[in-house]
Amino acid sequence: MTGESTAPAPRRRGRPSRTQSEQGPAMREVILDAAREQFSERGYEKASVRSIAKAAGVDSALVHHYFGTKEQVFAAAIEVAFAPALAAPTAVAEGSLDDVGERLTRFILGVWENPKTRTPLLAIVRSAVNNETAATVFRRLISTQLLARIAERLDLPDAELRAELAAAQLVGTAMLRYVIQVEPLASADVEQIVARVAPVVQGHLTGP
Amino acid sequence: MTGESTAPAPRRRGRPSRTQSEQGPAMREVILDAAREQFSERGYEKASVRSIAKAAGVDSALVHHYFGTKEQVFAAAIEVAFAPALAAPTAVAEGSLDDVGERLTRFILGVWENPKTRTPLLAIVRSAVNNETAATVFRRLISTQLLARIAERLDLPDAELRAELAAAQLVGTAMLRYVIQVEPLASADVEQIVARVAPVVQGHLTGP
Repeated sequence: MTGESTAPAPRRRGRPSRTQSEQGPAMREVILDAAREQFSERGYEKASVRSIAKAAGVDSALVHHYFGTKEQVFAAAIEVAFAPALAAPTAVAEGSLDDVGERLTRFILGVWENPKTRTPLLAIVRSAVNNETAATVFRRLISTQLLARIAERLDLPDAELRAELAAAQLVGTAMLRYVIQVEPLASADVEQIVARVAPVVQGHLTGP
Repeated sequence: MTGESTAPAPRRRGRPSRTQSEQGPAMREVILDAAREQFSERGYEKASVRSIAKAAGVDSALVHHYFGTKEQVFAAAIEVAFAPALAAPTAVAEGSLDDVGERLTRFILGVWENPKTRTPLLAIVRSAVNNETAATVFRRLISTQLLARIAERLDLPDAELRAELAAAQLVGTAMLRYVIQVEPLASADVEQIVARVAPVVQGHLTGP
């Protein structure tokens, strides 16, 4: 437990000392990094508050103190991992609705093209596909923080369904290009994909 | 090992007896059922030829005899599980290209709507998302038996990319509706989804 030195005060179960609370933000980050690693390596089911605490070099009680249950640690961890994608509503809002399809398509493909943002995304998708609880946490996140916010900008009937069907085209494209890697899609130029996918996304979002 | 009685002849490792070979088709089915169950329950990584043999009540050598390596058992198992979806090229071929989008959309949603065909599909998706080897086997299957065959019917430039982008819309819709279950998409009427998705699939397949 190499990180032990970063949690110096004597601890009692379930009651972090004042010293620990004072170094809150840094410690929270350390635990969150460990959590992301654990969920990513072991999957939602096999990761535990205990294994996360061990990886962070702290007591399990401290993990509970900052985050609560395993489900809540997971929610916090995927919010961080998903942060780049959560900027999508901003990309949608910045500019006219006339080319929102292209802006959103470029934005999402950009997140997937970059290995640094792709790897944590992939870990979330894996957890969500494998475990009901993880899927529920993920659903809540993308519904409230992504799809509802995009829908909000549209100001059209069925805005949420529109946002979801647009997302479906983008999610499916990402699955086949980056996860399953079918050819020629996996090797196609990004611009070629944008040219074909952006009009579809635009149609879902603002079409008749 | 309840199935032990179905493999009566004395066996030597790696050399199934003539009796066993004679009951080939039935035994092959028994092993394939066990394999599907094992891959579905334990995932690709944790399932093994040994665990499949045990579940089928036979010797590992018999599994090797009929299928070869674990990868080859997996390929055979997902081909069975994926069989309903593999009829899609036939659905595409039966009728005019003018409404191929609607035919394909209805066909794929039909496979996902039915719990009997959805469950094995979901197990494959899980394995493919979690493991590189499983993804490779799955990629090979959908490329050669699904996408290439649909592309063949189109007789258009970029036919394979067209088939893949149409599949992307359908795969993404299935992921968000049946796996992640975002609302309102998860509870939307199938007809409403067909009305919105079929024109997109048609556009990818035959559009300009």
